[in-house]
Amino acid sequence: MKKFYNLAPGPTEVPPELLLASAKPTIHHRTKEFSQLFKSVSSSLKSIFKTQNDVYILVSSGTGAMEMAVANVLSASDKAYVIDAGKFGERWGQICKTYGVDTYIEKLEWGSCYDVSMLENYLSKNPDCRAVFTQLSESASASTLPIKEIAQITAKYPDCVLVVDAVSGLLAQDIRMDEWGVDVLLSGSQKALMLPPGLAFISFSPKAERANERSNLPKFYFDYKKYKKNLEKDTSPFTMAVNMIYALQWSLHRIDEEGGVDTILEKTQKYAEAFRAGVQAIGLKLLSSCPVNGLTAVVVPEGIDGKKLKEEFYTRFGITIAGGQDKYAGKIIRVAHMGYFAPSDVILALSALEMLLFDMGYKLELGKGVATAERLLYKGC
Amino acid sequence: MKKFYNLAPGPTEVPPELLLASAKPTIHHRTKEFSQLFKSVSSSLKSIFKTQNDVYILVSSGTGAMEMAVANVLSASDKAYVIDAGKFGERWGQICKTYGVDTYIEKLEWGSCYDVSMLENYLSKNPDCRAVFTQLSESASASTLPIKEIAQITAKYPDCVLVVDAVSGLLAQDIRMDEWGVDVLLSGSQKALMLPPGLAFISFSPKAERANERSNLPKFYFDYKKYKKNLEKDTSPFTMAVNMIYALQWSLHRIDEEGGVDTILEKTQKYAEAFRAGVQAIGLKLLSSCPVNGLTAVVVPEGIDGKKLKEEFYTRFGITIAGGQDKYAGKIIRVAHMGYFAPSDVILALSALEMLLFDMGYKLELGKGVATAERLLYKGC
Repeated sequence: MKKFYNLAPGPTEVPPELLLASAKPTIHHRTKEFSQLFKSVSSSLKSIFKTQNDVYILVSSGTGAMEMAVANVLSASDKAYVIDAGKFGERWGQICKTYGVDTYIEKLEWGSCYDVSMLENYLSKNPDCRAVFTQLSESASASTLPIKEIAQITAKYPDCVLVVDAVSGLLAQDIRMDEWGVDVLLSGSQKALMLPPGLAFISFSPKAERANERSNLPKFYFDYKKYKKNLEKDTSPFTMAVNMIYALQWSLHRIDEEGGVDTILEKTQKYAEAFRAGVQAIGLKLLSSCPVNGLTAVVVPEGIDGKKLKEEFYTRFGITIAGGQDKYAGKIIRVAHMGYFAPSDVILALSALEMLLFDMGYKLELGKGVATAERLLYKGC
Repeated sequence: MKKFYNLAPGPTEVPPELLLASAKPTIHHRTKEFSQLFKSVSSSLKSIFKTQNDVYILVSSGTGAMEMAVANVLSASDKAYVIDAGKFGERWGQICKTYGVDTYIEKLEWGSCYDVSMLENYLSKNPDCRAVFTQLSESASASTLPIKEIAQITAKYPDCVLVVDAVSGLLAQDIRMDEWGVDVLLSGSQKALMLPPGLAFISFSPKAERANERSNLPKFYFDYKKYKKNLEKDTSPFTMAVNMIYALQWSLHRIDEEGGVDTILEKTQKYAEAFRAGVQAIGLKLLSSCPVNGLTAVVVPEGIDGKKLKEEFYTRFGITIAGGQDKYAGKIIRVAHMGYFAPSDVILALSALEMLLFDMGYKLELGKGVATAERLLYKGC
């Protein structure tokens, strides 16, 4: 009868009602019934992406959508600029290099803010750069990148597309594909959309479509043109994960009922602010100077074993959180605030953190973090 | 309260118990609990593939696994031999050409048998051929290819790997990866394994692994080495579709309880034989001279509208079957016998076929097809 709480930044907690909705009989994917459903969810995704462009649904993890972006807008030996602000930025570089792209990697310290003058500087010297790759939310450091400002720069280069990975960012951090001028935007099912892992989503602007016209990199399963041609007939080129589409329908309907994207963004921001204030109130530091709202990375204080701390969240309180990756393993903990989430989740995470740190010898005033969050959460939560 | 029967050759009928098993809470994919489960299902898949090689689980449709096979065993300009016995054989050719492979396509009439002397002849003239691509079960024509005999030939060429797509073949038609010498074997979740679509499976022999060592085609999401390295740690390189793994666990457990692979193969063969005898008893012809057991393609008699016939299966009897693809659209119907299937499914398909054809003006003795199948099904079904 142990009770569990999933506060990891993805796969996030999935509502039980969504899981049951996805357990409906698997109908054939080449039927009118399924096409109707597929058309409807594909179309609803546009409002989440804040775009008029089509949004394509892939059976893959988010990395598949990242590879699709690279393989469809570039050609071999093209120049590309990658902002590597953490593990997922690093992945952009790895994918580009795999395809023989001439890749410039702008490596940031994890958690530091990106200064767009770096991009201005690079592009002024490399006006033939074909693509800029970045993240809306770099999950490894819980940092956001200034997408709107970056897009203002890439807009000045008619042959340079801006590709944004919003796997952990979408529906947690504002992104406006059309208004800001993002050319390729992609996400995954297992973050703020509240689904299990198994689907990815991707959209291409007219500028990205022009880039695709000249792209000569090999692709088949992730070939943009196949998805485009099939979506015109309300279907997908390859067998769709039918039951995940039931889950997506449930999620999109629920998001709509809650008041839509902006309501959810506000709510997530409030939770993130309360959590950040709570951890700072007990003397802890955030890893990021440009924190995202979907999750928070907290620096584990000197002398405390971060791996043990993460484990005890689970063994003593049934709470799943994430630790740090690569050189931050054992140095940070990461706690989500997105998707199927409520004010009490902020509180229980802060409270467990207070109790565990207290027990591990860190000096703090019990309840102070929680009280700080309460003040920020109570007004109409 | 209309009742439905899914007799399409994939996605096949999914047991309700499996759907509920997959609706359990989505745990994090980087936990000991999930790794244990992932290790166990990955290992159980070996007995289904009849191999000692590792079997990798992909979040993709079967086509993703096909692309993985091509991209991981070949290099640009390598010679490859493709047996195109239908739509899925054709797909091998398309993928190879996408990657700049020097592809020879052996095109067969749909439903005709493959003569292995064609391969002997080709390889004797092209001993530098690096791979042979084929299907265990070509779903488009419901034909099987002689994998065992093909493997005896490729075995003589130390640098030529045999790649077999068993998406609709696995667990319906015998395939013995190790005993026969298949080098890459792949399948999908939505056929005889009874899962919804969303996962693919692939295994590489030591010979295929050597081919991978020299392969220079670009790949990231489908990079064999990443899956190999991660499975050694009981995990996958990219976020796994956690709930589909619950479904797979249920399926593998049930297959085991039923007596294992060979029991299921025998059962499927009996259903296929009864169905084939039933349709022939009412004067109909099979499309294939080398029929598979997982599904049957029946030629629609002269003067009957095959598209209407398929539609009426659904509108009048709630039965989903498949029609023909490409030039066989409206000319054949395809009915499955694999996965979550029972003798009564053979009967209801034959009975609906008798009634509909009778009604559409085709001369037949009502009940004759059913009676023929009953005789073959009754002994201990």
